[in-house]
Amino acid sequence: MFTFDLALVWLDLAGVLFFAVSGSLLAAKKQFDILGSALLASLVALGGGVIRDIIINAGPPAAFTNPVYLLPPLFAAALVYFLFSSIQRFTSLLTLFDAGGLALFCITGTLKALGAGLNPVAAVVLGVTTAVGGGLLRDITANEIPALFNARDLYALPAFAGATLTAVLWSVGAFNGLTAVLVAVLVFAFRVVAWRRAWRVPLAVRGWHRNGVASGAEPRLRD
Amino acid sequence: MFTFDLALVWLDLAGVLFFAVSGSLLAAKKQFDILGSALLASLVALGGGVIRDIIINAGPPAAFTNPVYLLPPLFAAALVYFLFSSIQRFTSLLTLFDAGGLALFCITGTLKALGAGLNPVAAVVLGVTTAVGGGLLRDITANEIPALFNARDLYALPAFAGATLTAVLWSVGAFNGLTAVLVAVLVFAFRVVAWRRAWRVPLAVRGWHRNGVASGAEPRLRD
Amino acid sequence: MFTFDLALVWLDLAGVLFFAVSGSLLAAKKQFDILGSALLASLVALGGGVIRDIIINAGPPAAFTNPVYLLPPLFAAALVYFLFSSIQRFTSLLTLFDAGGLALFCITGTLKALGAGLNPVAAVVLGVTTAVGGGLLRDITANEIPALFNARDLYALPAFAGATLTAVLWSVGAFNGLTAVLVAVLVFAFRVVAWRRAWRVPLAVRGWHRNGVASGAEPRLRD
Repeated sequence: MFTFDLALVWLDLAGVLFFAVSGSLLAAKKQFDILGSALLASLVALGGGVIRDIIINAGPPAAFTNPVYLLPPLFAAALVYFLFSSIQRFTSLLTLFDAGGLALFCITGTLKALGAGLNPVAAVVLGVTTAVGGGLLRDITANEIPALFNARDLYALPAFAGATLTAVLWSVGAFNGLTAVLVAVLVFAFRVVAWRRAWRVPLAVRGWHRNGVASGAEPRLRD
Repeated sequence: MFTFDLALVWLDLAGVLFFAVSGSLLAAKKQFDILGSALLASLVALGGGVIRDIIINAGPPAAFTNPVYLLPPLFAAALVYFLFSSIQRFTSLLTLFDAGGLALFCITGTLKALGAGLNPVAAVVLGVTTAVGGGLLRDITANEIPALFNARDLYALPAFAGATLTAVLWSVGAFNGLTAVLVAVLVFAFRVVAWRRAWRVPLAVRGWHRNGVASGAEPRLRD
Repeated sequence: MFTFDLALVWLDLAGVLFFAVSGSLLAAKKQFDILGSALLASLVALGGGVIRDIIINAGPPAAFTNPVYLLPPLFAAALVYFLFSSIQRFTSLLTLFDAGGLALFCITGTLKALGAGLNPVAAVVLGVTTAVGGGLLRDITANEIPALFNARDLYALPAFAGATLTAVLWSVGAFNGLTAVLVAVLVFAFRVVAWRRAWRVPLAVRGWHRNGVASGAEPRLRD
């Protein structure tokens, strides 16, 4: 399984890089300095995986034992430092990189959990946790409402779809390099199309609508 | 000890449900969508227990290995979705459900720690951590000042009392189903009465008072 | 190695005390009550070490198994309660105590990681994580922009220097009580001088400057 494990590391590192760039982009927007940019990139890129490895409980997280995981955040901070001033569409770019990280981490998180012997349901939950964990840390740290909870955005659903597909493909023995890339592309497309076309799910309360509430069901919040 | 362990799971699940409803209620107040509601419910309901299980360090947390833990957050999101629009007193309801979760988690957290071989003092600390951890995550994520630190509210003291009582009862061999229910009721009542009657402890600095400071000891904060 | 391990515990406890006071000072500034003060002191003082011990994955964290770790936060809350009202320079004091904790934790975090068998690079990363982790939790909880990301402040660089020095001294066999104190003093001085003299590193984007941006490279953020 050497080849497969190696492929998993590469997928994971690609996800780390995508998330790292999203962290450095947010740092630029928030006017952090270059150190803060590298640190926020590390937190986003490595946070989800560290949470995953701590929960699986199989020794120190890869991000701490394999120094190669430190390179993507440094690269991301450098990339944003040199190229950002010519960027036109900040939010679009952040969303695209974030979607790339999400697409790869929901796969690698689920696979790592399956490999550690968790049942498929638990593996899907952990895959989603890995995929959304880093972005959640990023947004909490930068004092933003997390994208995860933003009602203008479908964020967890693509990750959930990707993790479920991965677990199903693994269970029927059809998971390989090709299907992995297919799942990643699908999740990425799902997330980006949902964002461009402003797909929505209903609000948390029946009868309430965005930008105010429906007549006849207005909220009567009393403190 | 099968019966006892089973009772512990039931108490834990009841606490999970209470906290899950508090998460979905806050999601509704914040106008999150239905997915965000289920996710915030999961974070609150499972967060404290996951922190507890990671600290005890006895394999993957129950929330990830036992899929039954995923049902209460889904149930809570559905409950709030269908019933919230007729709710009159939002904050009261959230406080009551939060108090229910607190009352149960300070017991189960302490018991799990004692069962894992921690000393009674450590078990009390972990019980309080479990009880307040989920709510802390909830409030940080939703960008609220955590109830834990809100000087208008006694939050940690009831949890501390419940965890201490549990550890003492366990140490003298008097912990059983009946005393467990008694402790839970006591903690719940302590929390709710303290909130209704606006019981307070002193502020962090001697001589300072709420809504301004006492004459003669005014704060001279210089940057 | 009994003496060395004991010295490590004392250094660690001193760092815990410094960070605990910084937590209680922030609690006072935020008008938390005395319980919130003790809790925030605990979170700051023990948070970084708990994260470290969870990542090293060597049984329950010291803060939970050794009750002596609970004394510094209680002492800090009492200290601030009785002495704070006569304090003149709040921010200066918080920064000094925070710098003391940082100086000690970047050493003890790196040493614990080396002692657990991590490679030197990983040990440095974990040392920095330990040193900045508690303060990050403090600032996130109190809804402040973390000092770690504040572009007006050098925060991570002194910790990184201290962790690297510790790992190098350890590798060449020159780490002992004397060099430990030297490293701590150096890190403390670096942090405090950088803060007093307002040393800066460049912002996250080339060509941008603090308080607005350079002409010719103005940010064209489009949503």
